Amino acid sequence: MVLPSGLCVGLDPDLERLPAHLRQQPKAIEQFLTSIIHATRPHAAAFKINTAFFEQYGRAGLDALYAVRDAVGSSYCIIDAKRGDIGNTSAAYAKALFDDLQADAVTVAPYMGSDSIEPFLAYDNKLVYIIALTSNPGSADFQRLKVDGEPLYRRVMHTALGWKGAAQRGFVVGATHPEELAALRTAFPEVPFLIPGVGAQGGDPHVISAANQGGPALVNSSRGILYAGSGEDFANHAADVAKRLAVALAFSV
Amino acid sequence: MVLPSGLCVGLDPDLERLPAHLRQQPKAIEQFLTSIIHATRPHAAAFKINTAFFEQYGRAGLDALYAVRDAVGSSYCIIDAKRGDIGNTSAAYAKALFDDLQADAVTVAPYMGSDSIEPFLAYDNKLVYIIALTSNPGSADFQRLKVDGEPLYRRVMHTALGWKGAAQRGFVVGATHPEELAALRTAFPEVPFLIPGVGAQGGDPHVISAANQGGPALVNSSRGILYAGSGEDFANHAADVAKRLAVALAFSV
Repeated sequence: MVLPSGLCVGLDPDLERLPAHLRQQPKAIEQFLTSIIHATRPHAAAFKINTAFFEQYGRAGLDALYAVRDAVGSSYCIIDAKRGDIGNTSAAYAKALFDDLQADAVTVAPYMGSDSIEPFLAYDNKLVYIIALTSNPGSADFQRLKVDGEPLYRRVMHTALGWKGAAQRGFVVGATHPEELAALRTAFPEVPFLIPGVGAQGGDPHVISAANQGGPALVNSSRGILYAGSGEDFANHAADVAKRLAVALAFSV
Repeated sequence: MVLPSGLCVGLDPDLERLPAHLRQQPKAIEQFLTSIIHATRPHAAAFKINTAFFEQYGRAGLDALYAVRDAVGSSYCIIDAKRGDIGNTSAAYAKALFDDLQADAVTVAPYMGSDSIEPFLAYDNKLVYIIALTSNPGSADFQRLKVDGEPLYRRVMHTALGWKGAAQRGFVVGATHPEELAALRTAFPEVPFLIPGVGAQGGDPHVISAANQGGPALVNSSRGILYAGSGEDFANHAADVAKRLAVALAFSV
């Protein structure tokens, strides 16, 4: 299995931030994100669909979710849903994301432990990113708590690497923690990381690229790319930002 | 705000377990669960919709989700989705669950900390159950790890009670841990608990009722009620099991 590495373009629609000429269209989100996908595809190693931003618009949003998944097409597609529940329930989520939505990779939440993640890991040829040290301020509340002398997020990583399953496993490590990222990359040189938080959340692409030391990683930017322009040429602006980010990340353009 | 207390009927559709006469119908899930809701309503203090079991059937499943939400109507409705993400993303999930799907209560995952939960807590007149000690075997992996001498799930509860927000907050405590449930009820006598794991997962309703000591709690059973019968009279069997459970839980019937 080839591990995707490079820029990941996050598809997080926010109707209020869409270009004015699209906002009143009946399929505004689908139109907007399809243009973004086409314009940024040359610079993107992957696209990431965050389910929350579609679910917030109810049934129309779910229609858009399926249309956008189609528009991503055969490009590498992460569905960022951070699901996790007891075993039979996680098995249902895995069906939804891998079988129905045809995700190549997903994000999952570790708090409920092995049987909440193993139904995702049971899929061959898929990648499962377990959230470890996230980009948000609340990551300090529990993820950094010391457990037998190491932070909980480290314990999560060591434990998760021991779980059963055929899927490749990776971890979500926020771009807002470059020192920890560098230490984790040294500890886990071959493990894929999904690194959100570049751009709107403050992560610096040059710093992240250095910290990642060339390991397999997707570095995600959502708002910084999507809302780079607000006129009819929004897609060109998005492509420019994506290209600059890909260069700054020292990945191929 | 009146806290719901009593039996919670979990609505987890599994096409393969539906009565044979319904299985081939175009709206099998909707028909099945609408009958279950009508038959068990006299014994149920709440209904719990688990999103995974609808999402697994793709767009048809999402149609059923909305239809089943309508069928729950003005009965107390928990949407069990265990969402949790960075702040702006959790705000989108909160809109999806509280505004669009009109949940009275939701479940959320705590691993990402304060800003991942506070968008849910911002809603007045809603109840937010934070997962603490879950019913599944994997609950031992992280939830019981010792942090400064106390298990992580206790730290989650203490910390979460300090977060900002207008919503009532409660916790998910699995029925498979009656000793811990009794200790938590003593420590938090007024805090609402959502207690899954009675029935198929092995929790005993009499033991749970004693451990809960009359505190505000919804005790959930899903598979044990839904699949009590497999013939055309499945709804009567479901109602019988629900009634017996409600009596065993020593709540009103």
